[in-house]
Amino acid sequence: MVRVLGIDPGLVNLGWGVIEADRGRLRHVANGTCHSGKGSLAERLLTLHARLSEVIAAQAPEAAAVEQTFVNKDAVATLKLGQARAVALLVPAQFGLTVGEYAPNKVKKCVVGVGHADKAQVQHMVKMQLPGAVLSGPDAADALAVAICHAFYMDAPTAPVRA
Amino acid sequence: MVRVLGIDPGLVNLGWGVIEADRGRLRHVANGTCHSGKGSLAERLLTLHARLSEVIAAQAPEAAAVEQTFVNKDAVATLKLGQARAVALLVPAQFGLTVGEYAPNKVKKCVVGVGHADKAQVQHMVKMQLPGAVLSGPDAADALAVAICHAFYMDAPTAPVRA
Repeated sequence: MVRVLGIDPGLVNLGWGVIEADRGRLRHVANGTCHSGKGSLAERLLTLHARLSEVIAAQAPEAAAVEQTFVNKDAVATLKLGQARAVALLVPAQFGLTVGEYAPNKVKKCVVGVGHADKAQVQHMVKMQLPGAVLSGPDAADALAVAICHAFYMDAPTAPVRA
Repeated sequence: MVRVLGIDPGLVNLGWGVIEADRGRLRHVANGTCHSGKGSLAERLLTLHARLSEVIAAQAPEAAAVEQTFVNKDAVATLKLGQARAVALLVPAQFGLTVGEYAPNKVKKCVVGVGHADKAQVQHMVKMQLPGAVLSGPDAADALAVAICHAFYMDAPTAPVRA
């Protein structure tokens, strides 16, 4: 059995979700959203770093994965997302975790069955696969989907050795 | 007198420079480059975070500033730079420093006198303003230029209170 943390990075709201995976059997543990609050960019990154560190310390995951950033035409938005994503990658690494990365359409394909699905469909399928999970918001749902995806690919023969 | 750290963020090479400023009189303290090395993106961000933390612990600056990222047409490059920049903003904030941000052309205008200057010109003027400084590389020179810019604007009446 392995405890997996999924992260959906965002500068305003950073979603996280923790599941336990035991050879394809999944169990919801917890989910939530870290808010960066107000302040300068440095202060907001500091807040995200502190909140995510608290989550990892409390939840003690053994593996982590982050959704790959969708590079879009809005360069300013891409830059902001990149900065939030750095925190999402850095904090698990500081706790000694190997951090997997998955493209959004890979996550969707894993959870919904197709690469292009809307948020409501992802949320529905996350709830189906994690009975009893109460989703704290759309970002937390996306984070749980990343955790499910990582649990799936970690079990695959070609995946890297578990943490 | 105030000790100022300037940072030129980059994912491969992150330049840093420390100066002391005393009412417009500047003195070079140290400069260098943090290398992220090889590995996954998470590992490289972890390395940059550790190296920059060592620099701040050793140099004990009282103020810090980071060059604002130039958003360009290459979205992938923008994303990488954003991730390095997050580390450049986060680490000083973790040490309790307020982090100033300056656009590249503002830094150049401050150091060279015009907003558009090439790297050689910036390096020349940084050496002129910091006699005896041995520049460890172009990124470190840019970082010293950011520190000079911050020292200048911190002294201005409209600048925020010194750390």
